Amino acid sequence: MTPEQHLDQVLSAFASPENPRLRDLLSAVIRHLYAIVEETSLTHDEWFAAIDFLTKVGQKSDDVRQEFILLSDTLGVSMLLEMINYRGSVAATEPTVFGPFHVDGTPHRRMGASVVDHVLESDEPLTVKGRVLNTLGAPIGGATLDVWQVQSNGLYDVQQSSDTRNLRGVFTTGADGTYEFVTVRPVDYPVPNDGPVGVMLAASSRHPFRPAHIHFVVSADGHIPVTTHIFDARSKYLASDVVFGVRESLVVSMEDGLCEKDFVLEVKQAG
Amino acid sequence: MTPEQHLDQVLSAFASPENPRLRDLLSAVIRHLYAIVEETSLTHDEWFAAIDFLTKVGQKSDDVRQEFILLSDTLGVSMLLEMINYRGSVAATEPTVFGPFHVDGTPHRRMGASVVDHVLESDEPLTVKGRVLNTLGAPIGGATLDVWQVQSNGLYDVQQSSDTRNLRGVFTTGADGTYEFVTVRPVDYPVPNDGPVGVMLAASSRHPFRPAHIHFVVSADGHIPVTTHIFDARSKYLASDVVFGVRESLVVSMEDGLCEKDFVLEVKQAG
Repeated sequence: MTPEQHLDQVLSAFASPENPRLRDLLSAVIRHLYAIVEETSLTHDEWFAAIDFLTKVGQKSDDVRQEFILLSDTLGVSMLLEMINYRGSVAATEPTVFGPFHVDGTPHRRMGASVVDHVLESDEPLTVKGRVLNTLGAPIGGATLDVWQVQSNGLYDVQQSSDTRNLRGVFTTGADGTYEFVTVRPVDYPVPNDGPVGVMLAASSRHPFRPAHIHFVVSADGHIPVTTHIFDARSKYLASDVVFGVRESLVVSMEDGLCEKDFVLEVKQAG
Repeated sequence: MTPEQHLDQVLSAFASPENPRLRDLLSAVIRHLYAIVEETSLTHDEWFAAIDFLTKVGQKSDDVRQEFILLSDTLGVSMLLEMINYRGSVAATEPTVFGPFHVDGTPHRRMGASVVDHVLESDEPLTVKGRVLNTLGAPIGGATLDVWQVQSNGLYDVQQSSDTRNLRGVFTTGADGTYEFVTVRPVDYPVPNDGPVGVMLAASSRHPFRPAHIHFVVSADGHIPVTTHIFDARSKYLASDVVFGVRESLVVSMEDGLCEKDFVLEVKQAG
């Protein structure tokens, strides 16, 4: 039996018509797994090392740590997923990764307010402002900005305590489409690297850092929402973000306590 | 940035020359993961379902249960690995999967002896015999047969206790290349299906059974060893082995308490 005949036999076994989408997904997974094994002439020892690695990735995960998402992030798969699922045109703001640190139930704050609930000594104050526009340049009133970011100690609030909403806020634009809030300058920080993904990064001579950024989900009725960041132009990790999230159009100055950035949303097509 | 440019950026990040084999393996994994995501237009929900599934596969694994190997087996990857790593020609015995139930330190038994240490009521006695030959048909003296199989209750001895060697034995052929031992007729049995792999099999309308078989590793100095099975021609699962291990040349009659099978080893080439 040839490897091709073997592949046909396996695909036939998974060809049940009862769940066609699962069948198509598993078919793609199987075909590409086989291509990996054949292209690399994978040995038994390498196969077992892969089994052992994946097992450890699962076992490192728990209610607050998700090592498989981290693996997806650090292989660039999560970013690819954002790219292929985003329906905005090139005129709209570029998307980037959502990440694991968003919290549902973030408080709605008054436009212009501060998101700083707990001041740290290392904080550098920063005002962020701009407009939400459509791709024709018209301001969007009533647009929502869901904002979250790392503290100046390199940790998100939820990594230290579950009952804070420090450096998080939801804002709604007025009729002129403008937004503004007060925060602290974000810092570069490492993704969790004490698990198997950290071992993979080190073995590949890769550092674990993300360049300083602020997360946004910007949405408005009748428009395609965008999940994105703004990055601090000062960061030394812009060219080597461990999760490959940087886009040149998202890099902004955060000098002198001020940062300005407009977000552009695509109008949703009917149907 | 296009998905192709994103892929280039990710591959560059993993292009460290310090560990070229790891680089090549990860490059193949990344390229094919991206192809899966793009070909299937994978959604966020499907991506998360995959993350959740893989996490559960890792978490189901422990010292005695290896759910990732089971996943590899049931996707046909383990069998493919045997095929591409086997260096025997078409004249040699076909290989099949090694499986998770081999035990090191199996006792050496006298040729012709029984491997039955514990008799069960459901046992059907079986004598297995034949010759070990090279691809020119000449008998190989001093060849080793490492044999193991399931009990007539559908479990391997080690699934019930760690200190038995029931239905296991190592035999060495005499100058005429013949072997013979007494055992019990193997039975069809399901792979462990109370974990996430069992869920995948059920969702794909696949049963979890392996057709009745006896495991062999046959080896001899100067020859390429073969990891293989003999399958009972009576089994109703020959066409649908859950791990895709059946080869027509390995199916034999086990009627009337007798089973005959020759094993053919390829001579190892110098260098």
